[in-house]
Amino acid sequence: MERPRHQGMAKNTYMRWRLPLVCLLWEVAMIVLFGVFVRFGPEADAHWEEEKREMNLTSDIENDFYFRYPSFQDVHVMIFVGFGFLMTFLKRYGFGAVGFNFLLAAFGIQWAVLMQGWFHSFKNGKILIGVENLINADFCVGSVCIAFGAILGKTSPIQLLVMTLFQVTLFSVNEYILLNLLHVKDAGGSMTIHTFGAYFGLTVTRILYRPNLEQSKDKQGSVYHSDLFAMIGTLYLWMYWPSFNSAISDHGDAQHRSAINTYCSLAACVLTTMAFSSMLQKKGKLDMVHIQNATLAGGVAVGTSAEMMLTPYGSLIVGSISGIVSTLGYVYFTPFLESRLHIQDTCGIHNLHAMPGLIGGIVGAITAAAATEDVYGKEGFIKAFDFTGEYQKRTPSIQGGFQAAGIVVSLLMAFAGGAIVGGILKLPIWGDAAAENCFEDGVYWEVPEDEESDVYHMHNPDKPASP
Amino acid sequence: MERPRHQGMAKNTYMRWRLPLVCLLWEVAMIVLFGVFVRFGPEADAHWEEEKREMNLTSDIENDFYFRYPSFQDVHVMIFVGFGFLMTFLKRYGFGAVGFNFLLAAFGIQWAVLMQGWFHSFKNGKILIGVENLINADFCVGSVCIAFGAILGKTSPIQLLVMTLFQVTLFSVNEYILLNLLHVKDAGGSMTIHTFGAYFGLTVTRILYRPNLEQSKDKQGSVYHSDLFAMIGTLYLWMYWPSFNSAISDHGDAQHRSAINTYCSLAACVLTTMAFSSMLQKKGKLDMVHIQNATLAGGVAVGTSAEMMLTPYGSLIVGSISGIVSTLGYVYFTPFLESRLHIQDTCGIHNLHAMPGLIGGIVGAITAAAATEDVYGKEGFIKAFDFTGEYQKRTPSIQGGFQAAGIVVSLLMAFAGGAIVGGILKLPIWGDAAAENCFEDGVYWEVPEDEESDVYHMHNPDKPASP
Amino acid sequence: MERPRHQGMAKNTYMRWRLPLVCLLWEVAMIVLFGVFVRFGPEADAHWEEEKREMNLTSDIENDFYFRYPSFQDVHVMIFVGFGFLMTFLKRYGFGAVGFNFLLAAFGIQWAVLMQGWFHSFKNGKILIGVENLINADFCVGSVCIAFGAILGKTSPIQLLVMTLFQVTLFSVNEYILLNLLHVKDAGGSMTIHTFGAYFGLTVTRILYRPNLEQSKDKQGSVYHSDLFAMIGTLYLWMYWPSFNSAISDHGDAQHRSAINTYCSLAACVLTTMAFSSMLQKKGKLDMVHIQNATLAGGVAVGTSAEMMLTPYGSLIVGSISGIVSTLGYVYFTPFLESRLHIQDTCGIHNLHAMPGLIGGIVGAITAAAATEDVYGKEGFIKAFDFTGEYQKRTPSIQGGFQAAGIVVSLLMAFAGGAIVGGILKLPIWGDAAAENCFEDGVYWEVPEDEESDVYHMHNPDKPASP
Repeated sequence: MERPRHQGMAKNTYMRWRLPLVCLLWEVAMIVLFGVFVRFGPEADAHWEEEKREMNLTSDIENDFYFRYPSFQDVHVMIFVGFGFLMTFLKRYGFGAVGFNFLLAAFGIQWAVLMQGWFHSFKNGKILIGVENLINADFCVGSVCIAFGAILGKTSPIQLLVMTLFQVTLFSVNEYILLNLLHVKDAGGSMTIHTFGAYFGLTVTRILYRPNLEQSKDKQGSVYHSDLFAMIGTLYLWMYWPSFNSAISDHGDAQHRSAINTYCSLAACVLTTMAFSSMLQKKGKLDMVHIQNATLAGGVAVGTSAEMMLTPYGSLIVGSISGIVSTLGYVYFTPFLESRLHIQDTCGIHNLHAMPGLIGGIVGAITAAAATEDVYGKEGFIKAFDFTGEYQKRTPSIQGGFQAAGIVVSLLMAFAGGAIVGGILKLPIWGDAAAENCFEDGVYWEVPEDEESDVYHMHNPDKPASP
Repeated sequence: MERPRHQGMAKNTYMRWRLPLVCLLWEVAMIVLFGVFVRFGPEADAHWEEEKREMNLTSDIENDFYFRYPSFQDVHVMIFVGFGFLMTFLKRYGFGAVGFNFLLAAFGIQWAVLMQGWFHSFKNGKILIGVENLINADFCVGSVCIAFGAILGKTSPIQLLVMTLFQVTLFSVNEYILLNLLHVKDAGGSMTIHTFGAYFGLTVTRILYRPNLEQSKDKQGSVYHSDLFAMIGTLYLWMYWPSFNSAISDHGDAQHRSAINTYCSLAACVLTTMAFSSMLQKKGKLDMVHIQNATLAGGVAVGTSAEMMLTPYGSLIVGSISGIVSTLGYVYFTPFLESRLHIQDTCGIHNLHAMPGLIGGIVGAITAAAATEDVYGKEGFIKAFDFTGEYQKRTPSIQGGFQAAGIVVSLLMAFAGGAIVGGILKLPIWGDAAAENCFEDGVYWEVPEDEESDVYHMHNPDKPASP
Repeated sequence: MERPRHQGMAKNTYMRWRLPLVCLLWEVAMIVLFGVFVRFGPEADAHWEEEKREMNLTSDIENDFYFRYPSFQDVHVMIFVGFGFLMTFLKRYGFGAVGFNFLLAAFGIQWAVLMQGWFHSFKNGKILIGVENLINADFCVGSVCIAFGAILGKTSPIQLLVMTLFQVTLFSVNEYILLNLLHVKDAGGSMTIHTFGAYFGLTVTRILYRPNLEQSKDKQGSVYHSDLFAMIGTLYLWMYWPSFNSAISDHGDAQHRSAINTYCSLAACVLTTMAFSSMLQKKGKLDMVHIQNATLAGGVAVGTSAEMMLTPYGSLIVGSISGIVSTLGYVYFTPFLESRLHIQDTCGIHNLHAMPGLIGGIVGAITAAAATEDVYGKEGFIKAFDFTGEYQKRTPSIQGGFQAAGIVVSLLMAFAGGAIVGGILKLPIWGDAAAENCFEDGVYWEVPEDEESDVYHMHNPDKPASP
């Protein structure tokens, strides 16, 4: 076992010039690009009084801000506290979980405002932004946070920034293909965010496969309080998911309906997760990993269909199934992925995002295909699927077909993109840690002394820890 | 002392088939009942455009969603993070506190949507739901979370699910009696949620009295960080309580007023709690138990009257008194309840919910009885107490009498219901733990190894822990 | 080294009568003053129906409550969870951080409702309050929480209450001078909240200089989990800062714009903070102190200008600079302040609030001076700077001058006020702890036994800790 250890030792995790350089250069690039392209949209611009008259609005309360800002803040919490703390379950990687998630998301939202802006908010050479752009940027970054879950503990902050740069780009392209070219509905992002983000991350972690990862096996577990920190993340994701799925739906009934469907799906998901968590363990005890993760699958799985007339009982069914699938995934699929396919998935995103995302895409396709004017009302039918202009003649079944195509496109983009980005991240210049130092904050963070960390001794592994 | 120990050992806490069975069967029942009964209300249905015209609304922003959704999310946080983390103060029961609260609330909200729906939202054979139903379901479950506080650490998850089933049912009946038959106002639920929930829970814990609970005395305390986790719960309850009390008030001034009254009451409550906490301890030091709990009594105590013209100074008075009463309760009443009345109240819900709930009911009755057209305005008076239709001729003093009757009915329902449900939970089939294994996550959860837990050795208590 | 130790021992930290007396007397004073002065404003009063007609509003949704309540709740979270948990980074002062912040803020908001009410909401002998008053009270208390950061761990709860009383008073006077006399814009409070609060706190801590503070050096650090608790505070401050800066802006575009500018500034700030944190440490490792604090400087620095047409790229620039300045401050300035100027700044508020606050004031002055009718539109220009009535003839450059004057006034008020209040707090009657017991919860709190605390032995320092 000497070889891998020394191989590990050779790795250079010194960040002092590389990380600042990347951060500063990229921030300067953001400033320049924002300076050239980004301006306030009409509802955030000081010319609003004129705009209001033009839009025939009678009150300031009809500014889109008041329709979406509360949901935006909930989504914001999900990205930074939700994903950040969900990943603090590791005993020695709490700083990295919260801190790197903070870093990549803060960069990602800036780049996403640009990328998505060019595709969707570009007018007369300028990107005009409002609260909906902020939500969409958070959404886009959500897919990066998901991918981060697969490689948690095994990558350097620079690798994460590089991945964010590419993934946000690919996300925006994929989103454009789905929403604009295929005219697909995906308000909660089952396909664009979850399916894409998860399979992208899984492909990246496959490429970055570490054969000697069992060297840091002792750090891959949780401690009692780290599991409680993770529950903060879980609960905020769970509670605010109705806001996530409804944040960019049409004003009025669509936002209202999305929230209700998601609420129902998530409630059901908790019960089936608890049931299977207990059932699949010999002693019948509940496993925190399942409770922290599989309870959220219900939110993922109604992402596409939440704004449709899925109905509350339909949501319960979808939520129930996804809780079961996700928990089964943690017990049987994750070990299989690692041992057979060499996919090391730290947080089990395959169970929480990939499979439920696929379920979500399929449920969305079916729900769209099953839509009728009777169920939606004449006006509601056209509004719900935006069957106007060139899409005036689309039928529900054709829409269902396009929805299904959206899943396939997202998968292909994820695999291709993940493979390329994984290849880039494999270059030996990004400062990732050796296998035995994975899942260890001490590599990139100053850690307080209470944590008796192996890392303090890692540069001299042959010397005993205590003098 | 050998008997109780071995009696304890005989207890079967194996959950593997029982818990999954209950969870899955009940979730299937929910799906069937939702399928038969639950549909989207008009403001969440895709026919909203037609509905909007019918209701003479000019803008989507007048959809009830925008009046209530931000408050709903705050209430949601209170139920899942607020109650969940408030109960993590125990050193070894953090998983159970957050996890079981999650489980029972997720089941409870589904059942509450049905029960409350049958009573309040039933039209042409269907329950039509919107955001207000979600809030009410959360409210209903809030009363179960309160009762959970009394029996925290001493019951199995199945017992909690059984209790939830019955308590939600009884809550809905009691709420129907109060709101519909007695025409009582109780927007923040001092009577329906707190008084009912707390006395229900206290009755249940009385019936489940454990004479040998001192065997787990060492686990009934907190550790430093568990007290900080609990403060997360405290603060979210405290901060969002204005949303709780205003969430289902009438649009406009009533919601506005409820929030202000609650804000004032809670602020005052913190000061009197700190004062009495220091005063009642020999060394004058502050006690975290008081800060975590009694500071919230002010929110409970203005639950009924917050939407009335209680006025800000009235709220300060109510908040001040309830902080004092609650802190005194923790110091003098809780030990008395345990030693004399055999009521083992883990979280002290008698001090946080029962007594402040009674205060809230009484203050509400007085405030209603003191209402005048002068203070409320002619229209405001009728609107505030809904003195329309058959209640057109009610006077404030009669209303005050009915409010008082509401307290009595809630108490009777709580005692009777608690006694019956306590009896059911006493059956030896639900898998509760032995006295010496109470307050111990290891019984129902896989616990990481850092926690040196007695439970690992509990099946063989005579063998020494270390080899 | 014997003298300071025994000097310390002589200090009387017994709170039993002093703290309750202050809390109760002051709460009684609040009740009396609220009773005499505070009433519901027209939008929270039961006469709202008549008011609505008078204001020509067609829908309840135009009640100010719906414009501001979601932002209010976010601000509320920032004050109580944000500031409270941010300060839990100390290994043994978590109870004091969260608990004393809770106490002073709960008192402060009551007193602020009165003080600010007399200046801004006084009509016919009454203070008429609505949701905007609650936000402003939270804002005012925010400046006290900031000052608390400088003296964290070194003062008794009574000192904190006394400081709150005076600081809220001075804050309100300063705010009145700025907003009403100088007609300055400062929606996010770069000057009124941050500059004033920080320099006030720094002056207080200078006056309270403790030459022997190195005696508690071992307690001035963090432990692993206390750093994670602090990240809860950081993230909630970071995420909700767009709400903070937009909470009291004009309805419509101004609120919308403030949120966007703040979102951009904060995102940029994270990247430059990470860059400099790594760059300034020999091993290139990230320092949690920087991530917890300097990432927030971007929110402070756009406080004044967020509601102006700063533009998104302008915000990125401001955020980038303030992250750099703040991180440099932690590395170079804080040690300098302590060693040379005897300013012991526990949380580094000079870096997080003072310098970014000054930047914010200056950026605001420049942005105001650069305003043109072209950029704002004719109506927007007048509305944004409220150039009506006696201010009809103000030009942007004059406005810029007044903005700059606002910075100077805030600084002078802070230094003068801080000196006086520091002098009052230096009186030996308030029960502050000896130098070796600073940063130690055991002085004022009952602490669970897991924390092996020196304080348990502090009254008998010559006796060995273990028998």
